[in-house]
Amino acid sequence: MKIIKDIKFLIVGLGLIGGSYAEALTDLGYEVGAITRSQSSIDYAIKKGLIASGTTEVTKEYVSRFDVIIFALYPKVFIEWIEKYQGYIKDGAVLTDVTGVKSPVVYRVQEILRPEIEFIGAHPMAGKEVYGVQNADKTIFRNANYIVTPTEKNTPEGIRCCRELGKILGFKTVCELSPEKHDEMIGFLSQLTHCIAVSLMTCKESKELVNYTGDSFRDLTRIAKINETMWTELFLLNKEELLSQMDLFSKKFTELRDAIEVEDTEKMKEIMKTSTTRREYFDKK
Amino acid sequence: MKIIKDIKFLIVGLGLIGGSYAEALTDLGYEVGAITRSQSSIDYAIKKGLIASGTTEVTKEYVSRFDVIIFALYPKVFIEWIEKYQGYIKDGAVLTDVTGVKSPVVYRVQEILRPEIEFIGAHPMAGKEVYGVQNADKTIFRNANYIVTPTEKNTPEGIRCCRELGKILGFKTVCELSPEKHDEMIGFLSQLTHCIAVSLMTCKESKELVNYTGDSFRDLTRIAKINETMWTELFLLNKEELLSQMDLFSKKFTELRDAIEVEDTEKMKEIMKTSTTRREYFDKK
Repeated sequence: MKIIKDIKFLIVGLGLIGGSYAEALTDLGYEVGAITRSQSSIDYAIKKGLIASGTTEVTKEYVSRFDVIIFALYPKVFIEWIEKYQGYIKDGAVLTDVTGVKSPVVYRVQEILRPEIEFIGAHPMAGKEVYGVQNADKTIFRNANYIVTPTEKNTPEGIRCCRELGKILGFKTVCELSPEKHDEMIGFLSQLTHCIAVSLMTCKESKELVNYTGDSFRDLTRIAKINETMWTELFLLNKEELLSQMDLFSKKFTELRDAIEVEDTEKMKEIMKTSTTRREYFDKK
Repeated sequence: MKIIKDIKFLIVGLGLIGGSYAEALTDLGYEVGAITRSQSSIDYAIKKGLIASGTTEVTKEYVSRFDVIIFALYPKVFIEWIEKYQGYIKDGAVLTDVTGVKSPVVYRVQEILRPEIEFIGAHPMAGKEVYGVQNADKTIFRNANYIVTPTEKNTPEGIRCCRELGKILGFKTVCELSPEKHDEMIGFLSQLTHCIAVSLMTCKESKELVNYTGDSFRDLTRIAKINETMWTELFLLNKEELLSQMDLFSKKFTELRDAIEVEDTEKMKEIMKTSTTRREYFDKK
């Protein structure tokens, strides 16, 4: 499917991400509808001009109007939705999602989906530490990566459509990874970092430390404000990969700790030099 | 000593921090001199108007002209300097420093210093990931804390002078902590965070990850570009405190890891809720 002007988009789940998709697509001139649990989110989105229509009830009449459906739901709710309502979706529609873990979601949805519909997974690596459609903001995509995770069940047209979506949403880069590679990468770059931030933040009742805090502690704990329901689900969906990344980090942390304990200054300096060199790649981008 | 307009400041060690002190004080109209190892740093600082004079040689004639001396050297070099040259300093002068660890430095310097001179420790909690007087920039103090660490050897006048210095340099807040409390706090807020960032950065040869990196990983590793000579010295000076903070962090990290392994979702959510609540204190400031 080509993304041409009369394509209609349906957002299922109108939170921060769903709302930001809606804002971006509506501003580009597309017709955008929404299905979400709370009527007040729909009222807000219509009032702000983020969507053209919306409903809290899933009906065939409404769902079948749309060509591209974007699921911005928690993984489990998303899979249940597909099981229950996929009969309402029009033949030839393209479905995508925004879930932060891909393998368990992508393969499961593709397994249960009827053949007339195509699902292609995607992960918009963008966010904010606030929730809800009231915080929708399409500019969060500007400096972010959009990762498409095709499988052998996907068609070249489906992949192209999903990549094009990432492009028109305004992401800085659009790339492709297998669901497995995606989950390995995200286990390290995102889930491990959230586990570190959370652990650091829970070390101390830290109110008294606020006055002395420099940027280092603030930077390392920015992501420690975390939606516990969503992240618990994401961590467990990617459990094996995350545990292996956590164990790798623990090993490295203990190496440095032990070098400090025995005052092995050569080892300490070597570790810090490696760290400095590797961090420099990230400055160049 | 009151900081009045004809007070003369000497900066010993003209790097990023020393240079930034020089810039701030010169811009306020004070006469600032410098002693540092490299002639090119002095040439640069004079050319840019950061200092009025400077020398690579430590002479009594030069040193004795100054009322307030700021040591922006590595801790060990600083203590050696005092041992060697304190005879050159004029009676009644006030000395201070910028070292990131206080107990081992402050007590040692106060122990060896002749009684006609007062040393009062201070830690400007400001910095950049770049080095050298060429990067001097007084604006780094604007959002930063200046911590004065008096002991019972200090006079009320000495403490007042040091606090006033923090104020005129443009720090957002000036506060006082004992050297011990300072080192405990810095072990947690700064040294532990650097150890975490370094360990995370050394987990993987991460060049291929650059394309997929969101803000979380970048934030957590910003401080992983690190001056290995300075930090090795600072870590070892505060070794016991740092090791105890590292062990506390490891304990918390392992708690979360184990909760994930056994899929204890209640525990996971409880940890994340604590983290979220505690991080909120830091938003309010």
